Amino acid sequence: MDVLATYESVAQRLADLTAVEEALGILHWDQEIVMPAGAADARGKQIATLSVVAHERLTHADLGAGLQALTGNDALDETQKANVREALREHLRAVRIAPALVRAWGEWTTRGHQVWVQARQDSHFQAFAPVLAHLVELAKQRAAAVDPLKPAYDVLLDEFEPGMTMARLDPIFTELKAFLIPFVAQIRAKGQPSNTDWRSTPVAEADQRQFGESIVRAMGYSFECGRLDTSVHPFCGGAGPTDVRITTRYNENAFVGSLMGMIHETGHALYEQGRDLAYADQPVSRPRSMGIHESQSLLWEKQVGQARPFWQHHFPALQNAYPFLADLSLDEFVFGLNRVDFTNLIRVDADELTYPLHVILRYELERDLFNGALQVADLPAAWNAKIEQYLGIVPPDDRLGVLQDVHWSSGAFGYFPSYTLGALYAAQFYRKAVGEIPSIPVDLAAGNAKTLRDWLGVKIHHIGSRFETDQLCLRATGEVLNPKHFIDYARNKYAALYSL
Amino acid sequence: MDVLATYESVAQRLADLTAVEEALGILHWDQEIVMPAGAADARGKQIATLSVVAHERLTHADLGAGLQALTGNDALDETQKANVREALREHLRAVRIAPALVRAWGEWTTRGHQVWVQARQDSHFQAFAPVLAHLVELAKQRAAAVDPLKPAYDVLLDEFEPGMTMARLDPIFTELKAFLIPFVAQIRAKGQPSNTDWRSTPVAEADQRQFGESIVRAMGYSFECGRLDTSVHPFCGGAGPTDVRITTRYNENAFVGSLMGMIHETGHALYEQGRDLAYADQPVSRPRSMGIHESQSLLWEKQVGQARPFWQHHFPALQNAYPFLADLSLDEFVFGLNRVDFTNLIRVDADELTYPLHVILRYELERDLFNGALQVADLPAAWNAKIEQYLGIVPPDDRLGVLQDVHWSSGAFGYFPSYTLGALYAAQFYRKAVGEIPSIPVDLAAGNAKTLRDWLGVKIHHIGSRFETDQLCLRATGEVLNPKHFIDYARNKYAALYSL
Repeated sequence: MDVLATYESVAQRLADLTAVEEALGILHWDQEIVMPAGAADARGKQIATLSVVAHERLTHADLGAGLQALTGNDALDETQKANVREALREHLRAVRIAPALVRAWGEWTTRGHQVWVQARQDSHFQAFAPVLAHLVELAKQRAAAVDPLKPAYDVLLDEFEPGMTMARLDPIFTELKAFLIPFVAQIRAKGQPSNTDWRSTPVAEADQRQFGESIVRAMGYSFECGRLDTSVHPFCGGAGPTDVRITTRYNENAFVGSLMGMIHETGHALYEQGRDLAYADQPVSRPRSMGIHESQSLLWEKQVGQARPFWQHHFPALQNAYPFLADLSLDEFVFGLNRVDFTNLIRVDADELTYPLHVILRYELERDLFNGALQVADLPAAWNAKIEQYLGIVPPDDRLGVLQDVHWSSGAFGYFPSYTLGALYAAQFYRKAVGEIPSIPVDLAAGNAKTLRDWLGVKIHHIGSRFETDQLCLRATGEVLNPKHFIDYARNKYAALYSL
Repeated sequence: MDVLATYESVAQRLADLTAVEEALGILHWDQEIVMPAGAADARGKQIATLSVVAHERLTHADLGAGLQALTGNDALDETQKANVREALREHLRAVRIAPALVRAWGEWTTRGHQVWVQARQDSHFQAFAPVLAHLVELAKQRAAAVDPLKPAYDVLLDEFEPGMTMARLDPIFTELKAFLIPFVAQIRAKGQPSNTDWRSTPVAEADQRQFGESIVRAMGYSFECGRLDTSVHPFCGGAGPTDVRITTRYNENAFVGSLMGMIHETGHALYEQGRDLAYADQPVSRPRSMGIHESQSLLWEKQVGQARPFWQHHFPALQNAYPFLADLSLDEFVFGLNRVDFTNLIRVDADELTYPLHVILRYELERDLFNGALQVADLPAAWNAKIEQYLGIVPPDDRLGVLQDVHWSSGAFGYFPSYTLGALYAAQFYRKAVGEIPSIPVDLAAGNAKTLRDWLGVKIHHIGSRFETDQLCLRATGEVLNPKHFIDYARNKYAALYSL
């Protein structure tokens, strides 16, 4: 077969794989949003079966042979080459993990989740410890299967953040800690300058939904290629760039959280909806990594949605919709959106400044678990020591400490850093966007999100996985990931908010 | 491998196939009910890909070998034997149709549907005729591939109604026609005895939904294993017996149609929800045939939902919900539900007496198309001649005549008879149920549907496909299908309604 015929054959296999994965996306969405409760067991079997089908397609020997034959072939254009590179990475990762290990992983992550739910409810870490230890062991086996020459934790990081390593993360997180720990302490010493009790004024769910939807629309989300529903855990899912479904939850006594959640998920959704439709069924159009995905949600949530320009336009409409805000000033409102909460122990509820410290803590514990410096049984003590050191607070029990996150119970080791990488990329991207298009803040203040969205579309969304992450960042901003943009942004923003 | 190990292996393959088919059920439901419009193309690819996966699983050589090895093996129990029989029939039908013919069928039915939509809109049959002629030709090829020794149309009938043949249908439909044509003419001559203008009184959608849902619940439908939504075309779909989803449409000026539609779909749903859960992922638990499925919807819609006992209980609540019915008597209401419409040209809008004549007309035309007695080009003339002979009316154009139904455009030849077989089975089942449990009408009049539902559960729903259709009917009613039960029922009911 000639090169282009081989490429066509490979692309057809990848399109079929994409279709199966998209069908899985619908099954998951359906399960969370509309499925009747009695269907849970049957749904588990449907998802397991389609997962096997997807795995068969991804690991098919003909796909592997085609991808190997195409690798480095200059008859392909740049997009095709990138597509082959991305597909081959996924193919090799999948074929290198033996079926028995895939099965064991499936069984133990399911068991791990069940045991964790109970252990968290009982606030009893040692009940979870043996399963967690086994999951760490299985994750090491998976990593060794994928690449026996690399440290296990680097292989795990690579799954969520291709190319990321401990050697790169350690200095980045060290620099971030060196700034954040004293900075948060300084803010704590200063105290809250302004009352934010309005944040807990009750707002009916229907009102939250109506205003939130207006914001989602104003950001440019397409309801023609998506929908907005309510779920216990907000997420952005669906089936490819023409079917991007976001969800939110409404807490009647905490409207800010729901609103920011909608902006966050819309940020993810704009990335998905902005993918290159000409390659919608190929790996090359997919979002680059978890960290880049999170950069899009956090850019909209933090850089835009918690900043003054955006609310210059939208705050009057919010005051109109929520009359109890009538006497609040725009500055008081923006302060309230960003208020640092020194007492919060829970990552998912953390503000912009303390969130990275929650993540770095988890990263350091994971890294040490996998390099042998830390044992599973010692996790609670290590956790509590670190959080006291970073935030000056200690959890009263494991439920509010080491047992709070779902990730480890489902074997998602190496995932946490993506959240903070996202925050760092978000600051770097937004600064560059404004540098290139200085009107962006003015446009946002006039209710026009298009200039920013278009810049992200061209630099990030439409690019998909054409370039490796460093290259993507370099082309978008002129340099690779640099934490100083986030640090500058945070220092300036919070110094102003807290009059430091 | 020993017999039971072979059976287990076969059952696992069939369970996987079921899971893929159930996933397809969710994709279809999602497409009709919640999918954003922009996702249509991607959804087409997802459905096509999973259909290929299902076809691969069904036609797998190892499945065929296992089923052949198990056939007639007395180490299996009766349920296992029936499961093997059902699976082998489906497997053989699938393997006998060559991939090229499967592909051509997919392409031409898609094209046929598109051409038909336009031709119907233009009321221009000859624009559709060439595609229809090709679909008939392809259907003949499919039939010849499945069983070259049988008449093509018998093979097509068998797909929807296993075991059914023209040799059996002809005398049944002849007997039915001999009763219905003069009986409908007699009613037409008599005229309408009672005003039924209340049927077109507007009822808000929300009110229709609320009352309809109360009826669906009263029939015993489980919302724990299902849900009720709104769609353009009502259907019963979902993913297996624990996820049975029904839909309805609301016409604010025709509440009776919406209400009866909900009862009809609930009849289908009770069949699905009543399947044997121990075999939920195996063919043996599936509804026996299209005709038996329709018997369940029509039994609840016509025998129960358009009869006096059911409304003795529910009519006061309906009058309470819809105050414009306050002065209507129960008998006037029941008459209005059953009113024969002599002027209606459209099958889907037809009443209980004229509906079978619409079906018999289509059956005769299909049969003659496939045996060569009729050419596609002559269909409109043949249609118009028959409908004038059967109902005394003539369509003003093809849109209201030969182009009205979607079936032929998607190649569903041999499907129409199932509707009327369902009506015949419904009458036979209901008469037997009441014969065995004389309290059923009294129970219904007291708002208790359980005695009837339990009888159907034991005799039909839980049986699934354990027995061939004749055997199922014989065990349930003491005889095979006998149209005289429907004829007796219809004669008595309508003689009373129209004082003949």
